[in-house]
Amino acid sequence: MKMSRMYLPTLREVPAEAVIVSHRLLLRAGMIRKLSNGLFTYLPLGLRAFRKVENIIREEMNAIGCLEFKPSVVVPGDIWRESGRWETMGEGMLRVTNRVAQELVVSPTAEEAFTAVLRSELASYKQYPLAVYQINSKYRDEIRPRYGLMRSREFTMKDAYSYHTNEASLDASYQAFGQAYRRIFRRNGLSVIPVRADSGAMGGSGSEEFMVESAVGDNNLILCPDCGYAANDEKAACAPDLQTNNPTTLPTSQPLTAIATPEVRTIDQLTAFLNTVPQAFIKTLIYRAVNCELDLSAASNVGSLKRVTPANAPTWYPEAFFAVCVRGDLDVNEVKLAAVLKASEVALAADLDVERLTGAPVGFAGPVGLTGLPVLADPSVMALHDAVTGALQADLHFTHVEPGRDFSPWLVADVRTVKAGDRCVNCGAAYYGKKGNELGHIFKLGNKYTKSMGMSYLDENGKQQVPIMGCYGIGVDRTLASIIEEHHDADGIVWPMSVAPFQVAIVPIKYEGVMRQAADRLYGQLAAAGIEVLLDDREERPGVKFKDMDLIGIPVRIVVGDKNLPNVEVKLRSGGELRLIPLETAATEVHALVWAALEALMSGDPA
Amino acid sequence: MKMSRMYLPTLREVPAEAVIVSHRLLLRAGMIRKLSNGLFTYLPLGLRAFRKVENIIREEMNAIGCLEFKPSVVVPGDIWRESGRWETMGEGMLRVTNRVAQELVVSPTAEEAFTAVLRSELASYKQYPLAVYQINSKYRDEIRPRYGLMRSREFTMKDAYSYHTNEASLDASYQAFGQAYRRIFRRNGLSVIPVRADSGAMGGSGSEEFMVESAVGDNNLILCPDCGYAANDEKAACAPDLQTNNPTTLPTSQPLTAIATPEVRTIDQLTAFLNTVPQAFIKTLIYRAVNCELDLSAASNVGSLKRVTPANAPTWYPEAFFAVCVRGDLDVNEVKLAAVLKASEVALAADLDVERLTGAPVGFAGPVGLTGLPVLADPSVMALHDAVTGALQADLHFTHVEPGRDFSPWLVADVRTVKAGDRCVNCGAAYYGKKGNELGHIFKLGNKYTKSMGMSYLDENGKQQVPIMGCYGIGVDRTLASIIEEHHDADGIVWPMSVAPFQVAIVPIKYEGVMRQAADRLYGQLAAAGIEVLLDDREERPGVKFKDMDLIGIPVRIVVGDKNLPNVEVKLRSGGELRLIPLETAATEVHALVWAALEALMSGDPA
Repeated sequence: MKMSRMYLPTLREVPAEAVIVSHRLLLRAGMIRKLSNGLFTYLPLGLRAFRKVENIIREEMNAIGCLEFKPSVVVPGDIWRESGRWETMGEGMLRVTNRVAQELVVSPTAEEAFTAVLRSELASYKQYPLAVYQINSKYRDEIRPRYGLMRSREFTMKDAYSYHTNEASLDASYQAFGQAYRRIFRRNGLSVIPVRADSGAMGGSGSEEFMVESAVGDNNLILCPDCGYAANDEKAACAPDLQTNNPTTLPTSQPLTAIATPEVRTIDQLTAFLNTVPQAFIKTLIYRAVNCELDLSAASNVGSLKRVTPANAPTWYPEAFFAVCVRGDLDVNEVKLAAVLKASEVALAADLDVERLTGAPVGFAGPVGLTGLPVLADPSVMALHDAVTGALQADLHFTHVEPGRDFSPWLVADVRTVKAGDRCVNCGAAYYGKKGNELGHIFKLGNKYTKSMGMSYLDENGKQQVPIMGCYGIGVDRTLASIIEEHHDADGIVWPMSVAPFQVAIVPIKYEGVMRQAADRLYGQLAAAGIEVLLDDREERPGVKFKDMDLIGIPVRIVVGDKNLPNVEVKLRSGGELRLIPLETAATEVHALVWAALEALMSGDPA
Repeated sequence: MKMSRMYLPTLREVPAEAVIVSHRLLLRAGMIRKLSNGLFTYLPLGLRAFRKVENIIREEMNAIGCLEFKPSVVVPGDIWRESGRWETMGEGMLRVTNRVAQELVVSPTAEEAFTAVLRSELASYKQYPLAVYQINSKYRDEIRPRYGLMRSREFTMKDAYSYHTNEASLDASYQAFGQAYRRIFRRNGLSVIPVRADSGAMGGSGSEEFMVESAVGDNNLILCPDCGYAANDEKAACAPDLQTNNPTTLPTSQPLTAIATPEVRTIDQLTAFLNTVPQAFIKTLIYRAVNCELDLSAASNVGSLKRVTPANAPTWYPEAFFAVCVRGDLDVNEVKLAAVLKASEVALAADLDVERLTGAPVGFAGPVGLTGLPVLADPSVMALHDAVTGALQADLHFTHVEPGRDFSPWLVADVRTVKAGDRCVNCGAAYYGKKGNELGHIFKLGNKYTKSMGMSYLDENGKQQVPIMGCYGIGVDRTLASIIEEHHDADGIVWPMSVAPFQVAIVPIKYEGVMRQAADRLYGQLAAAGIEVLLDDREERPGVKFKDMDLIGIPVRIVVGDKNLPNVEVKLRSGGELRLIPLETAATEVHALVWAALEALMSGDPA
């Protein structure tokens, strides 16, 4: 394409609100413009790069046999009520009631939309497995949209869903998507960190997030420098850190002792009062869990708990309370706790519940002698000696507490929040932290949606069964922005060949005479060979043209100047030597360059 | 693609609600499924055809230098308030207030979204003209969505907008789009009727609609069998039909006579009372026009009218009243009237206004002696002789009225509704009528949006000017449905090659042994040559496979049977002979067939 036929409004300056590199460069390179807070318009150059990313994703989805559908963006509220997410999705979901009083939703995701269509289709086991996807507009009503395409309100997502009759089939699909995602990010020139992730509001277990490092990322990543362990801090595990952090490493022979602690409730007050450190305490918090699916029949004191026992599913408890113990300097990670309890939600219990269950005011809970509810202890607690904890009575604590001797928890499970500096659960090395943005996410959803939305099929024996699902998302705009975050320099974007809006730029020093002839000839030859070429035919000074080409980041630049003819000057945007090549062979050489770069991205080798 | 890897749920029966052919066949061929009223999901086969239509449109837009953008689907309500359409778009526009109390709109069209972005971009005359488009989801809250993709609520539209500094440039763009639209429909295999259309709520003048005939169409088309004149009845013109319809063809010498007509108000009552025919009457209706831009300075009795005289735009009148006369058997077409008056809206005046302006109760208005407001007469009135009309007094009419002698209207203009049987304005032949659906529409919008939204540029002399716009839409889904309406038979769809989801179907009688080898070989050869092939590798009876292939309408079918090998049987879905071709040469011959069909559609010749 000739520049004169393109709309390419490059900018020297950008609005102050653009604080991250990709946002600044997307604006400066004339790729996007803001229409409103979190709502962007792609201009032609931006759309070309966007389509490249989209097509790489599409090719890799098609390659694993995933079939493209196109649901509507606006969907009925009914199906969200069926799945139960009408209530749980919160205000981030854009809901509207139309003129005939129908509730509608501008899709934030599409488990419901696909399941609603396929539940009347996939009636026989013979039709399984099936994997389907769309690449379509989504809307989430971010309260603080910012960072350009990195956190907008409307965005484009590739969302795929797979339907299965058994776990092995789901697992095979999950693995295939995981591999496809790795290829997608590689072909986009992106370094991603695959991490174990909590599946959050999506439900289900078994999930992996694909993160890119970002100073303004939404996620805190916990990474091991030695063994490569990587996890979102919402789910990271760690080794018990006894040697370094426990004040006492040997059991005490002193008996459990109650001491008066008037007006002392917090850990800080206690450490001052007892002249010790937070690491010496067993912190005990009372949690309320909703829809708990963990088997509690072996726990004490849950006999009166309301339990629901459906025909084809495990027993679950609509409401249950737990005493959760961690070492005094640590925090309980509620996401991990919910996963351990298989609960849809956990939260600190109300004061009245705490008092009812512990028999003491808030601030004096402890595991010793606690009989009103099951006690769950983090391994950090079980490794303590000669510890301090609440004595289930106002203004009273126990000292010389020995876990195992003075109390035995119902369950020991890792529920602490892991931080940089903690020890790797695999190899013991000290973790470091990074902030990251999620580009993709793959989940095993299980039967959450198929069950609630009444999807079933007849198995080999003619028996009705509920299928299970996986779901697999990638943010297209965010992927595009992340490519710029990873590939830029002081002068502008440095596109990987695979996603460059144009592969080759031809810049005549002046678009006239022999230079024009040479430029046009090269342009024709390259275009005929299927190379995407941008020819700068503007009447601008060479310096302006070079600056613009550097800014928009076309991988190969060919300068046609009368001084060099019959040679032309070829330079890679990514750096390296400027080379003089005869005009005669330039098209052939550049064509080879482009293909070598594309193939390197396909194979994962550096270009 | 092999059928076993495709999701292709063909149906023998369809829901009763599918009353038109395209809706039935889209469901039966497994191309779409309904999610909710007016909301559809494209399944893989449907999406393949959809993308073909979309890409033909894209290619033709790119070919005329129109640049693709990608605005968001959800846009701020603010920009609709700026243009004034927040008020005028009515309840068909889906509006939602989000959690931070921002008004949002799910785009029904995008004049505002493009103008909002480009107004801060196109600051100099050097940047004009610019033509831009998107192919994106739109939502209009149809009260009665029906006929499948023909009238849905969410749909995909290609909408383009052009920006100009002068009429000649807008006209050139308008012509280019008109030609591109003709190519688009031709390539899609569609017979369209280009008609002069009213531009309705879009504003502006100069527009053309591209219609397809449909028994359930929204539009009434007025067509001339002889000269090809075609118009929407909202805008159709016609020749005065004096000879055939006027009761009296010669002037009367009798003077104007007032006769008492107690309790007689309607034309029916009058014809009975006077024992004559409706054609003898001059029907006079009082209309209120809003934002009238016609120059009224020469009209009598408008001296006191409020007028607005902006610096750079014509004078306009926020409210004006007119007496509109037509022959008694005819109707006033309010769309044509609004166009004549250059008004944004016209409606019958309220009774109180009628009484104030005519000095008589409703039912006794007439042009004779009417001085309170300008009189506009249809040519049908000026051709009457010895007519009857209201006498501006209760229970009184005039007879022996001679237009020109007894009254002279301020303006004579064609404002009547044209019907089948009326005479062609060009050649005098009798019109016939058809119902049609609009697939595309091109408009000259003028400065309606640029003015209201404050878009301006500096001209050659450094003077600030308001650009003018054109806008150009095509419904993608509706185009797809219309192709099926035009190309089907009793067995299913008969795709034109250009939009067929697959170009060639290979059906082995049984997918085993030599038949499997031959089918696989052909499949490989054709796929390698870039032909889109669907191979039916299912274990079904041949009859089932043939029925399915007929239903989904693949243009070329190759049957591989052991009886015919080493020949295969080639048949066109559109009919004609079944041919036996050697397997050796089948790929080459079929490749040539496919390309010949594509080229015929490109050039407009029948295949």
